[in-house]
Amino acid sequence: MKFVFVGGNTETARVDGISAAGATPAMMVHTPSADLEIVTYGQPVRAPVVPVSPTGCPTPAVVTRAVHELIGFERIAVDAGLARPTSAPTVSIGVDPGQDVRETTPVPAASAAFETARGLGRQMPEEKIIIGETIPGGTTTALGVLTALGERQTVSSSLPENPMKLKEGVIEAALDSSGLSAGDTANDPAATLRCIGDPVLASIGGLAVGATESGTDVTLAGGTQMAAAAAIVRHAGVDAPLSIATTIFIAEDESAAIEELAADLSVDVTVTDPGFDQRDHPVMDTYIAGEAKEGVGMGGALALADQNDVPMATVRDRIIEVYERLLEQDDE
Amino acid sequence: MKFVFVGGNTETARVDGISAAGATPAMMVHTPSADLEIVTYGQPVRAPVVPVSPTGCPTPAVVTRAVHELIGFERIAVDAGLARPTSAPTVSIGVDPGQDVRETTPVPAASAAFETARGLGRQMPEEKIIIGETIPGGTTTALGVLTALGERQTVSSSLPENPMKLKEGVIEAALDSSGLSAGDTANDPAATLRCIGDPVLASIGGLAVGATESGTDVTLAGGTQMAAAAAIVRHAGVDAPLSIATTIFIAEDESAAIEELAADLSVDVTVTDPGFDQRDHPVMDTYIAGEAKEGVGMGGALALADQNDVPMATVRDRIIEVYERLLEQDDE
Repeated sequence: MKFVFVGGNTETARVDGISAAGATPAMMVHTPSADLEIVTYGQPVRAPVVPVSPTGCPTPAVVTRAVHELIGFERIAVDAGLARPTSAPTVSIGVDPGQDVRETTPVPAASAAFETARGLGRQMPEEKIIIGETIPGGTTTALGVLTALGERQTVSSSLPENPMKLKEGVIEAALDSSGLSAGDTANDPAATLRCIGDPVLASIGGLAVGATESGTDVTLAGGTQMAAAAAIVRHAGVDAPLSIATTIFIAEDESAAIEELAADLSVDVTVTDPGFDQRDHPVMDTYIAGEAKEGVGMGGALALADQNDVPMATVRDRIIEVYERLLEQDDE
Repeated sequence: MKFVFVGGNTETARVDGISAAGATPAMMVHTPSADLEIVTYGQPVRAPVVPVSPTGCPTPAVVTRAVHELIGFERIAVDAGLARPTSAPTVSIGVDPGQDVRETTPVPAASAAFETARGLGRQMPEEKIIIGETIPGGTTTALGVLTALGERQTVSSSLPENPMKLKEGVIEAALDSSGLSAGDTANDPAATLRCIGDPVLASIGGLAVGATESGTDVTLAGGTQMAAAAAIVRHAGVDAPLSIATTIFIAEDESAAIEELAADLSVDVTVTDPGFDQRDHPVMDTYIAGEAKEGVGMGGALALADQNDVPMATVRDRIIEVYERLLEQDDE
């Protein structure tokens, strides 16, 4: 088993108020590179910041790192259009960061990225891979992909109040600029990703398709972005079993409708509750308040902890330990 | 602790008869990329071959992978001038493969590579790193570096009969073309690496210097190439403790004189004997016959197994298991 973390950027994250995957839109550009470093080293190395939301909620990479420290799963990081360098070792897909989804073709090389990732997925000699993502603005491009494919138009948010109207406006403009209407690119993942996607979705779609082609089980660790990735896989004609592993925070987000999305796509869903309500701590409180919710494979990592019989109380303790180490480093 | 595998190429490997790090000189170009994949995945993924010597001795990456499967140490692979793509995740130093050491400046960007690696080494939040290498032709460039720095001119070989005369001839020509005599670049690691080194030595030197600057313990896992790396560190003015972890095959190679080299440089040496003479198997036999001897961190991996109380009989069993999996894959 390998846990594959796919990181990249889209200029869509610069739309004011669309994402909480960084303290400010300017800081968000560093989030994916920092997340990959936190998973790999336990702290940012080359990235200048610990990603936090505008109100201080730390990146879900902290949760994934905590589980890694407890059970030591194997990791692979994938550079799928990182806008900033990272000291995490990465397999490069060779794709640029995505442009604003309202551009005509925000991911001109989507097809090549999909095929490169597909080759990587097919060649991975693993029985199972779990795929996580880190891309600020990713739920908006996910909404674009679901819309263009003609699927259910629901996505979650890293903000407590999902700015759905804002996202819908962006996707309306994005469809317009590409001359598309909802459902126009059904069964054409390449056109969908090129016209209204992002490089991370293109790479995850390719990885998942390639992995299923060589008999590797695929779990998509995340929320509605992973539902969009599953939609890409289904519209590529793959009917192999697929699973989503996500968090209670996504499952309880009505705007996400993850169960319905997954049912539409014949995808199993595993929901894990880390029991943050049983621990009084600022980190837990921000998640309870609906911030972040998911990302960097958090739901998949929690499911792994559960499968390995690690009590959630132990996971919570380790999350706080990882977080406190990050604070200390930030003070230096 | 992290085990850092630094891979790259030098055109010096094309000199006929100088290296056994591939079945033919043409195949050797794939060896570092394949080695990093074997350590990461247990088999080549994107690389087209399992590296073997002309007589069929499998790469020491098999040994390192076997130990990894037994004790699960953390790994980082570094692309320090790979000539072929790899599906192993890598941190890129951003340096090209080295030219033939007989060119005037075989590593024009040695200084930049050293500084990039130094930054990476300094930032690694680890108490200890162990550094391994994979670069066919690397003992010849190591001889060049030791010579130019004015150190003891002894190196080992991946061949049972060390072609020292051939290497000395190459290094004589290399010094000539750079207008240098033995000892001319003492205390100038950058000039040494640029004029008569390779990109892997430049990167290992930088990593080790940077790591010591931030209080990280450094073990160089390898034979005389690692002695050349230690010489680079010492000539950079660093007197922090340094260790070499190598194999019995290097220690018993009189042409290598590893103990003397290490003593010259105030470097501790740990030698581990995997007891290949206690197991009748073609893989063990080739190592007993003096092939390969070391590489891809083999000596460091064996030392780790020993420190973790893994019996060498268990290591030998696992080596054969990894090797047989590679054979099966090759047959597909």
